[in-house]
Amino acid sequence: MQKSLSVYDSDGSTFAPLVVIELVSETKEEAIAWLLNRVRDKQQDGGAELLVEQLTPGAQGTEKDNPNVYVVGASWQRLLYGAEDVGLFKEFKDGSMRGFTYANKHNFKEFQGDGDGFLSMAECQYIIKHGLDNLRAKDEAHVPGYPKMKLYPGKSVIRRMQSKGILVQVFPLHEKEELKRLSFSWFKKIKLSFQPLDDIRHYFGEGMALYFGFLEYFTLALIPMALIGIPYYLFDWEDYDKFTVFAGFNLVWCTVILELWKRLSASLAYGWGTLSRKKAFEEPRPGFHGVLGVNPVTGRAEPLYSNAKRQLRIYLLSVPFVLLCLYLSLYVMMIYFDMEGWALMIHDEEPTFWTGLLLFIPSIIYAVVIEIMNLIYRYAAEFLTGWENHRLESTFQNHLVLKVLVFNFFNCFASLFYIAFVMQDMVLLRQSLATLLITSQILNQIMEAFLPYWLQRRRNKKAHKRMIKTMEDKELPLSEQVKLEADMSTYLGTFDDYLELFLLFGYVSLFSCVYPLAAVLVVLNNVTEVYSDAFKMCKVFKRPFSEPAANIGVWQLAFEAMSVIAVVTNCALIGMSPQVKSYFPESETQLILWVVGFEHFLLASKFILTFVIPDVPKHIQIKLSRLEFESLEALKKRMFITLHVAQK
Amino acid sequence: MQKSLSVYDSDGSTFAPLVVIELVSETKEEAIAWLLNRVRDKQQDGGAELLVEQLTPGAQGTEKDNPNVYVVGASWQRLLYGAEDVGLFKEFKDGSMRGFTYANKHNFKEFQGDGDGFLSMAECQYIIKHGLDNLRAKDEAHVPGYPKMKLYPGKSVIRRMQSKGILVQVFPLHEKEELKRLSFSWFKKIKLSFQPLDDIRHYFGEGMALYFGFLEYFTLALIPMALIGIPYYLFDWEDYDKFTVFAGFNLVWCTVILELWKRLSASLAYGWGTLSRKKAFEEPRPGFHGVLGVNPVTGRAEPLYSNAKRQLRIYLLSVPFVLLCLYLSLYVMMIYFDMEGWALMIHDEEPTFWTGLLLFIPSIIYAVVIEIMNLIYRYAAEFLTGWENHRLESTFQNHLVLKVLVFNFFNCFASLFYIAFVMQDMVLLRQSLATLLITSQILNQIMEAFLPYWLQRRRNKKAHKRMIKTMEDKELPLSEQVKLEADMSTYLGTFDDYLELFLLFGYVSLFSCVYPLAAVLVVLNNVTEVYSDAFKMCKVFKRPFSEPAANIGVWQLAFEAMSVIAVVTNCALIGMSPQVKSYFPESETQLILWVVGFEHFLLASKFILTFVIPDVPKHIQIKLSRLEFESLEALKKRMFITLHVAQK
Repeated sequence: MQKSLSVYDSDGSTFAPLVVIELVSETKEEAIAWLLNRVRDKQQDGGAELLVEQLTPGAQGTEKDNPNVYVVGASWQRLLYGAEDVGLFKEFKDGSMRGFTYANKHNFKEFQGDGDGFLSMAECQYIIKHGLDNLRAKDEAHVPGYPKMKLYPGKSVIRRMQSKGILVQVFPLHEKEELKRLSFSWFKKIKLSFQPLDDIRHYFGEGMALYFGFLEYFTLALIPMALIGIPYYLFDWEDYDKFTVFAGFNLVWCTVILELWKRLSASLAYGWGTLSRKKAFEEPRPGFHGVLGVNPVTGRAEPLYSNAKRQLRIYLLSVPFVLLCLYLSLYVMMIYFDMEGWALMIHDEEPTFWTGLLLFIPSIIYAVVIEIMNLIYRYAAEFLTGWENHRLESTFQNHLVLKVLVFNFFNCFASLFYIAFVMQDMVLLRQSLATLLITSQILNQIMEAFLPYWLQRRRNKKAHKRMIKTMEDKELPLSEQVKLEADMSTYLGTFDDYLELFLLFGYVSLFSCVYPLAAVLVVLNNVTEVYSDAFKMCKVFKRPFSEPAANIGVWQLAFEAMSVIAVVTNCALIGMSPQVKSYFPESETQLILWVVGFEHFLLASKFILTFVIPDVPKHIQIKLSRLEFESLEALKKRMFITLHVAQK
Repeated sequence: MQKSLSVYDSDGSTFAPLVVIELVSETKEEAIAWLLNRVRDKQQDGGAELLVEQLTPGAQGTEKDNPNVYVVGASWQRLLYGAEDVGLFKEFKDGSMRGFTYANKHNFKEFQGDGDGFLSMAECQYIIKHGLDNLRAKDEAHVPGYPKMKLYPGKSVIRRMQSKGILVQVFPLHEKEELKRLSFSWFKKIKLSFQPLDDIRHYFGEGMALYFGFLEYFTLALIPMALIGIPYYLFDWEDYDKFTVFAGFNLVWCTVILELWKRLSASLAYGWGTLSRKKAFEEPRPGFHGVLGVNPVTGRAEPLYSNAKRQLRIYLLSVPFVLLCLYLSLYVMMIYFDMEGWALMIHDEEPTFWTGLLLFIPSIIYAVVIEIMNLIYRYAAEFLTGWENHRLESTFQNHLVLKVLVFNFFNCFASLFYIAFVMQDMVLLRQSLATLLITSQILNQIMEAFLPYWLQRRRNKKAHKRMIKTMEDKELPLSEQVKLEADMSTYLGTFDDYLELFLLFGYVSLFSCVYPLAAVLVVLNNVTEVYSDAFKMCKVFKRPFSEPAANIGVWQLAFEAMSVIAVVTNCALIGMSPQVKSYFPESETQLILWVVGFEHFLLASKFILTFVIPDVPKHIQIKLSRLEFESLEALKKRMFITLHVAQK
């Protein structure tokens, strides 16, 4: 926990600022006063029982600065009770992970003295966010001063103010010292070692740490493939026999790797206390709207939106829109093939070095266009999924992921499928694959880390030229730090990062038997990706709230689906290879039947393997069962006492 | 609850006898006295707190009768506490299903007065069984009087005595009146109506009721197929175009049917209170042995057996044995084909009516041999799986099911696969399928219900000739009833019944496009199956202990696997049909690619469908979420109170 900065709360005692709330500058006084009171109120009076103070502008404060910036903190006791409330799991004295309870606090391993340092800053911020999100309207009909900003009992106050635009943002503060240490061990020194996953988790939370863990695991898992792939390139092994072996290895590898990741992520999540943590009841997402009704589960007042209407929106608008986009993407692909043919024609007419280079131009342009289309579609999909008006953030995310995945898959791989199975031109396939892969990697690295960083630096240079210098050198006053961080871009979650990995996985696995070098390229990309992602998290973006996560969620499924498709494509490619064809000189039918049989065998083995390998390692399974057994026994003991009290 | 019979316990008060314990007649007095004391002891002293009395032999008692037969019952209070202990779910006043607690008993819908009739007799018997199974050794080193019958603290006394053979059996008593009512509404009147599933559940428990529910559902689900199948037979539609349509319909139907069953079974299980019931901690199965050690989960003394040893046994003995059996089955199949060829030869030489009949003889003999081999293999598999020494009954069952399924599948369908895909003789396939299906149906019905019934009647006729007459007419004294029931065969669980359905499902689905009449035959079989199974449960077998079950478990998986295999075989059959072949006159390759593409499309749709259809109907999902939400809220409230008590 940072102790370096502190503000005085209204009682005159100091507290460590953890989270910043920014309201629009013209917010009415009465709304502010009401909000602050509600935040400060005791929990039994329906408040959040947090400490909150207005940020006093520093020496460099100008007229333009927004005065309505508040910092929020909490007493240690409130944070510890909050930890119980959100259901944090911590290491117990006996080494097992247990749900933290305030009453039992001294039995937890890292709890010393009054509990200072027991909760990480990220956890404290998460607890405060939970407290703020759960600050609910009582009998207010609207936000004071804003008669149009309707409230009803049980409505989350912060979410309403956010959706109506008075609340600009709520974000957690960075901790300079810790961040410096983390940056140093993470990406500032070039070295061969694993990422400091525990520190990342400590600072950014479990969701982020799992992403980086997966990135690292995925990279390591590709190294054997890359090592096998290099000789293919160096010695020009254009030999399908060897490709076949490579592809076979690849398929088994993919399946095993994905299964082992499940086990590894279960181990990580157990150690971080998120594996057995119960999911809290999900609130409607902020953008959800509908006619006020009663939720059948909670019995609370809540907007309701008919499922039939949502289905109509999905099937009458979203699905046709996605299909239209797919058609467009096909159209663009056809233009690419025209360009390709045109370049080939020029090269054939009068082959020079320059026309040889020209051959790559269409692929590069196509790769750039693909990236741009992906980007535009991404926004359209987000808008459309928002308009479908899903009640839960998780359903929203699932629909968004499905839309984006289908399109991205189609957009990136349609041309490769066309080249492979319709044109059956393996040379072009290899060339296309290489160009697409390399171009998209370069574009991605630029787009996601260096461009935002450069934009931010340019912006900062103008406004806070002097300040940045001091920021690097010595400690900044709180007000300046808050101002700086408020201006940073907001990190929108791991979605785009996983999507990138998913597409890379596709390039590696779908056509691995014609281009074994893909694994090498992806490994190289991932190594730089670790650095650029780490850099962007620490330097470019606002600190995100930590998200408890026990696994990589829907992405596990997406990767598994990709590996199933990879079995099919690789078997088809093997069947098309001249070497395999030469085994069946007279009968193509025999060849196809063998390939299909082999493919079915592989698919069946894949499913059996997925089924047979347990998702959670045995030693963790034992610990989980022990916890469950103990809670059952405790229940019995309680009942047993009741029984004998009743009998007496 | 039956009130008609009662015995006096040692205090002189009466209790209703529910469960019978039979010890071998030469059991030592001290062991009996010790056991009875432990059963009667208060729970706080480590006893089961049940009422138990020796059965006084009736008027017809002879010297030969075993004197060591005991009836067990319990006080109403003990049963109600037991209901909480085993985690029964009952309907609450607000219509939802909640875990029963003694303290809260008056808030449950059917709880009236002192709770008489609140628990069904099957539930009471289950509670008593649970109490007996959980009667654990304290500091006894062995069963008194039997120094070799070692005990250690925590060992289940009943299980030890059972595995060492002093305890012959523990079984629940029938209730004549209820059974008579149930039999009448179930199978004694021939009528078109659904089975009384709730009554079956009430009398036999959830596991049995789910089996009968599934049998009924499966039959109903086949009716549309049967209706479409009849015209094929009547009008001799030997037209593959129409078969193709039929097979396509069939495949979609199978998938949808299995998904809908999941939803239906969830509805049933919710209404019966087993859906959200927590699984109790699983004890080692009775036959499990090993070196005494400490269970890492419970911390209790328990035999341990190394997993590596078990794996060795599985891979070095069980797997080779299964493979050997499969080889044997193949060998028998080859003999069948020789016989078939021989019969055909005779018929071709001099075709008469009798030689035409002779054509069916090999199939019939083969079907009988298949049934015999299945039966022998079944015992071998059980022995082998027992020898693998699995710790849990559930793992034992899974390994047994896997072994038996693989062999039965192979044994029953190998010849059909051979005829279909190697010989490609559709006429023989149809004839073989029909003979196998009909013969196995007839054999099964005889074997599973009428043979045991006939054997039992013959046995009874000799011994209790007079008694049976009175049994039908008027009330029997308790001692006679117990003696009669103790002699009935023991029902070994639903395994064989499900296995039979599984094989029937295979006959219907695997080759549906060549023999649409199969569905008709299976529907007819199932209708009689309902009656014969109901008859055997009520008349032939001892009453089984009720098994709480929320679904049909591993069988759902088995049926789904079969429906996946069915997609593959049907697509292949369609591809082999002359009509489909005629669409691709010049290129067989094109044909195969189309068929494979179609098959992949079907498989993908199947998986998507399985994924998209929710396993639990929405209205039940809402009820489950509400319960969970309430328990979360209750937890918060408790914490909230603690928080403010602590602050004051």
